[in-house]
Parts: sequence; C-alpha cells; structure tokens
Amino acid sequence: MDTIAAISTALGEGAIGIVRLSGDQAISIGDKLFSGAKPLKEVPSHTIVYGHLAEDGEVIEESMVTVMRAPKTYTREDIIEINCHGGLVSVNRVLQAVLSHGARLAEPGEFTKRAFLNGRIDLSQAEGVMDLIRSKTDRAMNVAMRQVEGRLSNQIKRLRQEVLETVAAIEVNIDYPEYDAETITQDIIKEKMTPVLAEVESLLVTAKQGKVLREGLATAIIGRPNVGKSSLMNSLVHEAKAIVTDIPGTTRDTLEEYVNVRGVPLRLVDTAGIRETEDIVEKIGVERSRQALKDADLILLVLNSAEPLTIEDEALFDAVSGMDVVVIVNKTDQKKRIDMEKVHQLAANRPVVTTSLLFEEGIDQLEEAISGLFFDGGIESHDLTYVSNARHIGLLNQAKTRALEAIEATDMDVPVDLIQIDVTRTWELLGEIIGEDVQDSLIDQLFSQFCLGK
Amino acid sequence: MDTIAAISTALGEGAIGIVRLSGDQAISIGDKLFSGAKPLKEVPSHTIVYGHLAEDGEVIEESMVTVMRAPKTYTREDIIEINCHGGLVSVNRVLQAVLSHGARLAEPGEFTKRAFLNGRIDLSQAEGVMDLIRSKTDRAMNVAMRQVEGRLSNQIKRLRQEVLETVAAIEVNIDYPEYDAETITQDIIKEKMTPVLAEVESLLVTAKQGKVLREGLATAIIGRPNVGKSSLMNSLVHEAKAIVTDIPGTTRDTLEEYVNVRGVPLRLVDTAGIRETEDIVEKIGVERSRQALKDADLILLVLNSAEPLTIEDEALFDAVSGMDVVVIVNKTDQKKRIDMEKVHQLAANRPVVTTSLLFEEGIDQLEEAISGLFFDGGIESHDLTYVSNARHIGLLNQAKTRALEAIEATDMDVPVDLIQIDVTRTWELLGEIIGEDVQDSLIDQLFSQFCLGK
Repeated sequence: MDTIAAISTALGEGAIGIVRLSGDQAISIGDKLFSGAKPLKEVPSHTIVYGHLAEDGEVIEESMVTVMRAPKTYTREDIIEINCHGGLVSVNRVLQAVLSHGARLAEPGEFTKRAFLNGRIDLSQAEGVMDLIRSKTDRAMNVAMRQVEGRLSNQIKRLRQEVLETVAAIEVNIDYPEYDAETITQDIIKEKMTPVLAEVESLLVTAKQGKVLREGLATAIIGRPNVGKSSLMNSLVHEAKAIVTDIPGTTRDTLEEYVNVRGVPLRLVDTAGIRETEDIVEKIGVERSRQALKDADLILLVLNSAEPLTIEDEALFDAVSGMDVVVIVNKTDQKKRIDMEKVHQLAANRPVVTTSLLFEEGIDQLEEAISGLFFDGGIESHDLTYVSNARHIGLLNQAKTRALEAIEATDMDVPVDLIQIDVTRTWELLGEIIGEDVQDSLIDQLFSQFCLGK
Repeated sequence: MDTIAAISTALGEGAIGIVRLSGDQAISIGDKLFSGAKPLKEVPSHTIVYGHLAEDGEVIEESMVTVMRAPKTYTREDIIEINCHGGLVSVNRVLQAVLSHGARLAEPGEFTKRAFLNGRIDLSQAEGVMDLIRSKTDRAMNVAMRQVEGRLSNQIKRLRQEVLETVAAIEVNIDYPEYDAETITQDIIKEKMTPVLAEVESLLVTAKQGKVLREGLATAIIGRPNVGKSSLMNSLVHEAKAIVTDIPGTTRDTLEEYVNVRGVPLRLVDTAGIRETEDIVEKIGVERSRQALKDADLILLVLNSAEPLTIEDEALFDAVSGMDVVVIVNKTDQKKRIDMEKVHQLAANRPVVTTSLLFEEGIDQLEEAISGLFFDGGIESHDLTYVSNARHIGLLNQAKTRALEAIEATDMDVPVDLIQIDVTRTWELLGEIIGEDVQDSLIDQLFSQFCLGK
C-alpha cells in the first residue's frame, strides 16, 4: 500500500502540530527531509529524535520525529510522526514537503481504516475511536472508550459464536435428514436462539442511553413569553456548564450550544431563536415555540408560578404529549398564583421542578430531573456495554427481528431449511457490526466521516 | 521548580491531542495515571510507549506517552508528552487528571519561558518560536525560523562584544588617566562604534520588510463605486490565494482576511465594509473608502478605465499622498475613456497596473507590483537576518541613537566618562533584544502573549 500523510492535530495556532505518515515509505520519505544525529532509518523503533527538516538546502523546521516500525503501531505499518511548531503555515508546509517527496494525502479516517484493514481493530472499535474524539462529555467518552477497548466487539463475537453453532446444528440436519431430526433441530434452534435474542434485546435497552450520550439530546425550551426561557438558557449555558468553558483559550462559539448536565450532553435547539423570543414575542408568540419541538428529544416546558395557567400553557402540554418533558414552574420568588395540582395533572407522570432562576434556585433539581429521565437508577456507564451508534442499533434491531422470526418459526413447524435463512441472516447482521462481511463501499463511507489525520 | 502541564496542540477535533508536562515530577505524575509494559520511570529517555491512562480504576484513555529526560529537552527539564485522542473532552480530561495529580496548569508560553530561563535559548529565539507559530506565509516562516536558529542572536552577540571592548577601553582610560589618553580613547570609541552603528542601521533596513512579513500588510482597497473593488477583493481572496485554503478541513473564517501575495501576507482591512460598499454606495460613497485608509500600510486604489477621471478619483489620490499605493486601472476590457497620462501624473512614481478583473487579466502584474513595493530587487529572506519584531526594532532604534550620540560626542571633545554612558547604554539595549538584563516583568509580559502549551 502507498504511504499516506496527514496533519493529525487539530488545525489552529498550537504549540505542537503533528504530520503523520504511515506506510512502507514513511521512514525513507522522512529521511529525505530530516537531518539529525543519524538518519531515521537507523533510529530504533519507538524513539523520538531531534533534528531539522530541510528542503532545497534551506531549513524549514526544527522538529522532533517519532519513529515507530511495523507491526506494533496504530496502523500496523511503519509510522513516523513529525512534531513541528503548531502554526497553520508551519504544519501545512511540512505536510506539503512530505507530499512532494512521495507520500499521498490521507483520506479522512484512512489511518484508522488501515488499522481495521490490517486487522488490529474491528469496525465497531474503529467507530469508537471517532466517537471518542467527538464525545461531548466524560460520560460519553467512557462509552466510546469501552467500545474502543472492544467490549461491544467481544460481546458480539460471543453472540455470533452461539448463532454459528445453531447454524452448524441445522447444517447437520439438512445434510443428514433422519426421522425426528427436523423436530429435534427446531428445538435446538429455539433453545440456542432464545438467549441470543434476550442478549440482543438487552443491548438494545442501552441504545437509548447510548445514543443520548453519543449524540446529545436535542433540547427545546418552550413556554409563553416572559416565563423565563432566556433565564433558563442562560442558567444552563453560562453557569460554567457550557461544555468547553473549562478549557482555557477555547472560543465559546465552537460548541456553545452543548451543555453538560451530569454527563448528559444537551444540544439546545434553535438557541438564537429562543433568545429572540423574548423580544419578538408579540409577533410570533407561542407558534414559534411549537416550531422548536419538531426535532427535540427533550422538552423543557417553562411555566410562570406567579400567574394562573393559561390556555396557551395547556396548548403547550397538548403539543408535547408523548415526548420526554420536564416541566419547570419558574418565578417561585414571586407570589404563587399557579394551580400546582392542575400542573401535576397536565404533566401526568412527568417530572415537575420548581425554580427561581432569578435567584438560581432549583437548578440542581432540574438537572437531576433531566438526568433521571435518561439515566434512571443511577446506571453508571462503566458497568455496561452501551450501544450508542445508530448503525449498530439498526443492525441489532434487524438481528432481533430475524432471531425472533426464527424462534417463532420453530413453534409453527416451519421447515428447518427455511428457518436457517433467518438464523444465518442474524449471524451476518451481527457480523456487520464488527465489520465482517461488510461491503467496501460501506467501509469507505464510514471512514469518510472521520476527521483528517486519524 | 514546580511541574507544569498544558494542552500543547490546537484545540478542536483532531486525531491526536497532546498534554505536555515539564518539571521534576513530570514522570512520576505520569506514572500515577499510566499503565503500560513498564512504568514511565523505567523507560529510557526519548522513547514512546503505549499504554492506558486510568483514574479510580477506570480506563480514561488509550495513549502513547513520550518520555524525555533532562537536559536534552525543550525546557531542559524532564518532559512527558501524553498523546491521546484529540477530542476536546478527551484532551481536557487528561489535562484535568494530571492537574489533580500534582501538576500546575502552565501559563501561556511557560514551556518556552523555561527554555529561556534554563539557558537553552535566548529571548529573541523564544520570540521567534511564537512568530513561527503565528506566521502567515512561508516567507514569514523563514524569517522566524532564522530567528529561532539564533541568527539574529549571534549577530547581536557579536555586536555586543564589539561594544564591550569599547567599554573596556574606556574603563582603562578612566582608571589610568594619562596625558593624551582622553583623545586616544575618543579615537578608539569612534573607530569601534562606527561599524557597530553601520551594522545596527543595516539591520534596521530589514525591519520594514521583516515587520511586513511578520505582521502582514494592512491593505485597504479604495475607489469610487463600481470600479471593481469587490472583484479585486474576490480575485485576491478566492483564487486559491487565501492563506489557509490549501489545508483541507480549515474553515475559511479563521484567517480569511489574510491573502498571500508572493509570500507577503496582506490583511484586507474592513473586508465586510468593502463588500458592502458596492451595495450601499449611494448612501456612503467615497467617504467610506477614505475611512478605510486610517490604519492601512498599503492602498490599492482602483480606477475605472472605461470612464474619465472624476473629481472623486483625484480626491482619493490626495487622500493617500505619502502612502504606499498601487494604482489599478480596471475594466480594460471596455472602451478606454480614462486619461492614462493624467493617471501616471497623479500616481507620481507609484506603480500603475492595468487589469480586467472580469477576465482575470493583470493580476500577476498587480501581485508583482505589490511585492515589489516591499521586496524590491528580489531580496530573498534566507539571505538576510531580518528584524521583524517591533520590540527588537524599537531597541535597535534606541541603540542606533545612542551609538550615534557616542560617535558624535567624540568629535565634540566630550569627556570620555560621559561618552561611556551612551556606549554602555548601547550595550544594554542590544542585550535586551536577546534577553540580557531584562526585567522580570518584561519577561512575564512577553511570554504571556504566547499560546498555551508552548
């Protein structure tokens, strides 16, 4: 395979930028630019050496180069990592230099793709790598880390083994049809596939939470004018809860719409819209809030404790029926005029929290309510293999359907060779999660969603 | 000194993020988190090892850790670099973990400050490091690289040695005053300080170019409505000349106002304003353009070849008298109605370029004219030690004044012990460039302008 190169650090002004090369020619291409105490090809594996990079006799960079020889590398190929000064021009110049000496610009995710193609990791682990990079909270990162470590892969492999044994049993029956063999095989299928189905179902139970951690909860704040929607937004965003504020130097713009509520990443939908709402209330009114509901996973419905419930309030409850809602009764610092019994009745079994956002009261309870909606019972992410990836969830759902059909078919006396189709398909579907029997085009598409240099 | 830690890569989603530690405890703090084939303290210097980072028994990251022991390191202290997955949460989590195990968050530039305080580099080299990271073009990077390599430092040190010998000669005279010694010493001062002055002056000649390369040219595009200002802007920005477009994945926003004209970084002033101009021309007119002049280093004055010169055009020439101007006569694709003789007369000796921006004609000549204004005679940056830093330029100017005064004083028979004050001050001023006799507060202030993690 040809030697690929890319900038592997985030782009921007940083102290260190890394240009990474992987492939047979990685070290020799490095040596065309590098001059240090000795050439890279004579440097032991897994060492870092100081030197200069020069082109046309002119020093272009001072750098530290890490040399890692196959197979104990990320891609299982020879890798060099050129650590240079982290400016945009500097890193790009080094990249251009290695490209001009024979490396090819890596596609997004191509390093990880090679790790997969060379058998170091499977597909779900590779997908975990990307989730790790994109994770919005520690909790989400834990889920991704478990996936990178291969916890999901191992469980899937074990399940596949069980299914494979079922297939083997069926094959025996088909090859040597005997009296009663059909019935015995049906029993074997049922006996073996039932726990498989149960395990697939229990994995799917984690999917809702996994997906929340991975992708964040699209959250809409709705309510009549002046109930405190902006204040709520500000409480969530500004009180040291915006996800990246504790990294010095990060611009707020980058991720400011994500807030971290006890490890659950909330993505505040239509932020600007909600901010505006208070001002242009007369023109747009409640309709605007309804609009924001469309794509929301979580609704924060704000009511005004100091006013009686209105028809608009009730209309909002109607609009969110069947959705995940936390009801917030705000302005408890003022004289209470709202009918709390009616509120609880409208809320049905959904959590109701009273707050005085003005005095920053009730925010803890609100966070607990939000977290509780998705992580009831204090499930901790490291206790469980979470399924978080939509592709995996889709495949597990299909596998569940096929396994269920196979089991049901045994009760309906369907011929074993027909049942075999479902069992085999279950095996294939589970395999796709870890990248077995997956089409090249899917592989290409999956890795193209990676970031550059990984 | 305590052990410092920081994220040393740019912040954002990247394949690799680095948390760097420097200090006596760097390795032992690393070992509190790291588990690999063996502890970091048993790993040889300048090697990279694979392992996991764990906190409270839970794996938080998979990582490669580079161990570099003092003194052959960036700071001359023990350094470890934890290479982890480059997401915001991931890198920040590792940073928090090392901070909780006893490292202190580094101040901006503190690694480089330690390199300076521990004598590995001098102040002008340290400043070069920052310029390298911030450089906008290859050419600017070359200048910074020369500075990091110590070319300016060496020249300054040599000059200081000359001045020091002059001081020594004066000391001899003051200590042992003899007949004629005063006159002889005055001659020595003049003889020794004259070449010093000449060299300081020749360094200052590079300052204009150096500063342009380092900081970019604030460039204003002015002209009457519909002469083609927006087209010019687009030609400069969009035709693959915006500085970072060739780095895949870079957002245009970051540096889009910088364009690279033959290695000269142009910073287009009031970009939005100029773009608007075409639309809101009737309201704001030429006044707007005049406004843009205030902070400009370079003026691109656009005229319409298809129309006769107007009073407004002439007013613009008046407004830019004494400034660096390139006159662009645009729309040569249309019938010519402009009086070119008059244009050249108004332009005085400044370059006039004819273009048809519509057909992309004349842009090469325009670039040549811009580049020629600042880099006439094709001076190449690697031939010369450029002075690019405003602090250095200021100090050199002061040194020049003092050296000149010392030389002039010798002709005016000023007592040698008075001349000594100027000579000594010259020596001190030159020293400040490389960080000798510099106050701590200045050091602190300089390094605080660095980026984090460097």
